[in-house]
Amino acid sequence: MDRKLSRALRASFLLMGLGGSTAIAQGTAPLHPLDGLTTAEYWVAYDVLQQAGHAEPDSFFASVLLREPAKDFVFAWKGGLPIPREADVVMLQKGKTFEARVDLAARKLISWRELKGLQAPFLSSEIFGTDEMIKKDPRVLEALKKRGLTDLNSVECLALPLSYAAVPEQDTQRIGFGSCSQQHGSYHSWGQSIEGLTLQIDMVAKKILKVVDTEVVPVANGAVNYEEIPEHARPGTTPIAISQPMGASFQIKNSEVSWQNWHFRFRIDQRIGPVVNLVRFEDGGRMRSVMYEGSLSELYVPYMDPSNGWNNRVFIDAGEFYSGIGLLKPLRPGLDCPANAAYFDGLSAGEHGAPKISSQVVCLFERTGSDPAWRHFEGHNVYGRPARELVMRSAAVVGNYDYLMDWRFQQDGSIDVAVGATGVIETKASAQKDAAGQAMDQSSMNMPMEYGQFVAENTIGVNHDHFFSYRLDMDVDGPDNSFMADRMVQQLLPSDPMRKSIWAVKPMIAVREKDAIMDIHLETPSMWLFANPNVKGPLGYPTGYEIMPGATAKSLLSPDDLPQKLGGFSEHQFWVTPNDPMQRYAAGVYPTSSKATDGLAVWTKSNRPIENTDLVGWYTLGFHHMPRVEDWPVMPTMWHHFQIRPFNFFGANPVLDLPKTQ
Amino acid sequence: MDRKLSRALRASFLLMGLGGSTAIAQGTAPLHPLDGLTTAEYWVAYDVLQQAGHAEPDSFFASVLLREPAKDFVFAWKGGLPIPREADVVMLQKGKTFEARVDLAARKLISWRELKGLQAPFLSSEIFGTDEMIKKDPRVLEALKKRGLTDLNSVECLALPLSYAAVPEQDTQRIGFGSCSQQHGSYHSWGQSIEGLTLQIDMVAKKILKVVDTEVVPVANGAVNYEEIPEHARPGTTPIAISQPMGASFQIKNSEVSWQNWHFRFRIDQRIGPVVNLVRFEDGGRMRSVMYEGSLSELYVPYMDPSNGWNNRVFIDAGEFYSGIGLLKPLRPGLDCPANAAYFDGLSAGEHGAPKISSQVVCLFERTGSDPAWRHFEGHNVYGRPARELVMRSAAVVGNYDYLMDWRFQQDGSIDVAVGATGVIETKASAQKDAAGQAMDQSSMNMPMEYGQFVAENTIGVNHDHFFSYRLDMDVDGPDNSFMADRMVQQLLPSDPMRKSIWAVKPMIAVREKDAIMDIHLETPSMWLFANPNVKGPLGYPTGYEIMPGATAKSLLSPDDLPQKLGGFSEHQFWVTPNDPMQRYAAGVYPTSSKATDGLAVWTKSNRPIENTDLVGWYTLGFHHMPRVEDWPVMPTMWHHFQIRPFNFFGANPVLDLPKTQ
Repeated sequence: MDRKLSRALRASFLLMGLGGSTAIAQGTAPLHPLDGLTTAEYWVAYDVLQQAGHAEPDSFFASVLLREPAKDFVFAWKGGLPIPREADVVMLQKGKTFEARVDLAARKLISWRELKGLQAPFLSSEIFGTDEMIKKDPRVLEALKKRGLTDLNSVECLALPLSYAAVPEQDTQRIGFGSCSQQHGSYHSWGQSIEGLTLQIDMVAKKILKVVDTEVVPVANGAVNYEEIPEHARPGTTPIAISQPMGASFQIKNSEVSWQNWHFRFRIDQRIGPVVNLVRFEDGGRMRSVMYEGSLSELYVPYMDPSNGWNNRVFIDAGEFYSGIGLLKPLRPGLDCPANAAYFDGLSAGEHGAPKISSQVVCLFERTGSDPAWRHFEGHNVYGRPARELVMRSAAVVGNYDYLMDWRFQQDGSIDVAVGATGVIETKASAQKDAAGQAMDQSSMNMPMEYGQFVAENTIGVNHDHFFSYRLDMDVDGPDNSFMADRMVQQLLPSDPMRKSIWAVKPMIAVREKDAIMDIHLETPSMWLFANPNVKGPLGYPTGYEIMPGATAKSLLSPDDLPQKLGGFSEHQFWVTPNDPMQRYAAGVYPTSSKATDGLAVWTKSNRPIENTDLVGWYTLGFHHMPRVEDWPVMPTMWHHFQIRPFNFFGANPVLDLPKTQ
Repeated sequence: MDRKLSRALRASFLLMGLGGSTAIAQGTAPLHPLDGLTTAEYWVAYDVLQQAGHAEPDSFFASVLLREPAKDFVFAWKGGLPIPREADVVMLQKGKTFEARVDLAARKLISWRELKGLQAPFLSSEIFGTDEMIKKDPRVLEALKKRGLTDLNSVECLALPLSYAAVPEQDTQRIGFGSCSQQHGSYHSWGQSIEGLTLQIDMVAKKILKVVDTEVVPVANGAVNYEEIPEHARPGTTPIAISQPMGASFQIKNSEVSWQNWHFRFRIDQRIGPVVNLVRFEDGGRMRSVMYEGSLSELYVPYMDPSNGWNNRVFIDAGEFYSGIGLLKPLRPGLDCPANAAYFDGLSAGEHGAPKISSQVVCLFERTGSDPAWRHFEGHNVYGRPARELVMRSAAVVGNYDYLMDWRFQQDGSIDVAVGATGVIETKASAQKDAAGQAMDQSSMNMPMEYGQFVAENTIGVNHDHFFSYRLDMDVDGPDNSFMADRMVQQLLPSDPMRKSIWAVKPMIAVREKDAIMDIHLETPSMWLFANPNVKGPLGYPTGYEIMPGATAKSLLSPDDLPQKLGGFSEHQFWVTPNDPMQRYAAGVYPTSSKATDGLAVWTKSNRPIENTDLVGWYTLGFHHMPRVEDWPVMPTMWHHFQIRPFNFFGANPVLDLPKTQ
């Protein structure tokens, strides 16, 4: 399709606010240096590597990602100027991992090097390609037989990567960790794991190195078919219709989104999902920068059961599993997004280098919770303005868990970042049927179920954590910001006639990275602020944006435990680093079989200066999960969130001028 | 109106899901022992007290509230049986406070006693009735003159109660604390306080005891007219229409609300707003109890400036200010509630005993955020069900602040309790214009602005806290419950080949009240559970409901500071007491000029047993507020919330049977 026509079509399509699916400059030529890789560009990366002799039949494209241009370049760039484009490519060849940098505009290979001691993410073909081999191993057959499993058709085996280097073989080999489940009676195999049987596999030699069989437990047989239970929907639910008869009030032009004074771009990244860029707010005609880039950086999901097959379940979900189809999975209209949503497709590199379209992986919609943006009752009258928000939603699905990932732009200059966790929990089969034998008294509180709880008969939901690291390249009124913690501190008033104490604000400017490591303690609260010491608002304060945490959690694992070192970002709730474009992933670029030599906890050890410079904030959103019966066979969605909100950025409440009606 | 007809009309009206305003059995005869007081009943209370000689011309009705019947009685009661009804009345007569208990059904006075050393809440006529007297005092006139204020028409003075006994005169007299503001140039007087001038007033003798004038500061002259700024609404906002063409799917019958397996009642209480009762969930045909009663209990709002006129600003908003019109103020259709909302009126006792209707103070509506109740991507398909919720909303407004108070019933058995804070912040005039002189570097961090920040020229938003106590009479499958804290504790794994640590669950049953005082520490997390040790779910666990906290705060004041003792509930995030129907208000029944001898922190000192008995949970929702420029002249709404959610209450996910479309 002609580029100009395509652009016009895309714009008019979305200006009308219609649903349907479209791409933000991913299929055609890029319109902006920060646009996602296009189909043509994926093929250029392929051609360059192929012509350089690196795309042999036994070579696999583990990762093809846009390499962003420098910020300075982006600031200077204007429409019409040439767009330099590069891709970072990770190739896997006979178990060796190579890193390539490709100049897409010049169609040439900039660099190519082998990464010794690091592992490319596992390919889908590796994970699922071991089934046949595993089911031929006599030790496995014997183990299955012990469990009464002789029909191999309904048994599925796979090999997963392990995020951290738990066994010495991982130092020199590409090791997969095998396990099996069975599917008989269901249309999926969650909840029917084959316990106690684990394998260690040399993924290159395609050889099973070790079969461990610790415990024969029958496969659980609970009700797992969530989609079919029950037969009939509950009656009496009358329809709620949401419509925007005059179309959406957001616009997309040259792949930039404009809505209610907000302006931003986004691309869909194979590894980390939506990346929002150049987030600006139009304030009385001035286009003011808030955030250069915001995205998920990484996920860390450690399980909490010490038995064989469970003690090494520690997932670094984005970095380990994005190869192939990518982190994001399709959204379903009417379920995940409303009738007035617009949809966007993503592109990802398949393992042979060819791009694949991921359909409708991001949606954008306005919604109102019927809440006031502000209101006040005064003199027998109610004043106020109704609020709405713009939601950019995607769904990250890695195996069993589904995470709805929202960026919710508020009219008042705030951005609410939210994660809704749903999907299927990981369960362990138990010989014990249920908890019926457990009394509920103090004496029985040193119980057998400390690692999980029954969610169905013979089925234990295993305890675990979820930690998300969000990377927030804040540019409040420009790239150079300082990070402040305004601490609220008790102050005694020895001579006050009326009272003995108040709290007072003690601001602290973080000079180095360690000053900006924030932990939430209710006894010692503080307000976290990115402020621009070079720009003052009308009242003389440096303009700023606050990071307001939501309910969250920190990791309880021992800091010297390797999995915890890898997920070290979960030690603290907020971190600040000087912006280094090579430091994007909080658990490092290559978390597979990792020794935790890269990532946020490592970088910040050097305690770099961070005052009045280009800063990146890292928010840890975490929650502990003790499964409950209600989480089975599929979990009700649970939301967690945090907020990015203006603090002395504007000259007053920025939503006084909203219309009085919705 | 005939009672039967009225009931039928009310039911059919709401069954059709129309908007408009109605009362839940508040104007006519009660349909249930927990219904709010009716117009007729207010008049019975009046008549009984009048006939007993207690309603003389100088007597004031400070409070007339339903006195709930005993739970046992309510459980035994059935439609058609007589409904015993009582009211608790507080009378104020020549500065003396009297407490009466009136049997409404028998039309007789049960008890009457003077409360020595306790103060009835202030009447509106007391608060606003001092204006003329104050403006006649030569010391005040002199003070106003010093500030250039000679036109008294635009000066407004009032006398506020003080929650705690800060001065010795409060021990023996009814003391009001006077202050003035001016209104010239605005349609309200927020933001134009007259600083430094305070008064101490004997409210009975109507005598100004003391005038303190510490500091002459000009009245601030910032832009305060939020409703008129700017002249034109921003363009480009296309309408979002929400409709329920077939009507709402909730029903109200005999003033009981039914929606999506939920059943509950509510009444509108003058002091604490909506009180939900008999909250049950229909589970496979069984009507199961979740919560007997849930409501706000109290608010505690201490300010953090030690200067004259500010050092005693500590509000116990419900208990001090509910007299007269009551806590709740009207909701505006289209602003506070959507087009598909139903509205409910409240009744409150005026200071002469006559009931007054508060129009549209509660609304009830279904809404969808276009979020899935659950979803899962599996085998190239997305499965799931769209969610909706039922919102019961009110707006508590005490002077400057507006709190939207939501009870959000979820289809999955959870209840989200949320507070949206908006309205106008309290400001202090400053001789200094703004913060322009402040540098942003480490040396200037011991700053002049530690008690607040400029929000407009010469206008400082003063730092303060908000603490809400919610009273939750949980009855999980019956009244007798135990409270558990499932602690997540690090466990080292010295012999594990794969890792060094996990966390394990260590449950604790709270035997006495002190065991159940919960503090949030990210290092020592726990899950808070009301469990019924007498009822087991299908998997053998006691059935339970979890209290899941949201982001919150604890008080930083010194525990031995009297205001903090009064708001002592803010020391901890959760408390559990044995149910005592006389213990309803977390800062005590009579917080005005109080010595903090009543309330949650006092009751729990006796450390009563709480195992397997009728329990009440007390959740503290708190936040510190350092005002920002954006909070002026009216605050963007900020939400905080917590959740009450099933934990091993059901046999599985309870929303598998939702319809597939919204």
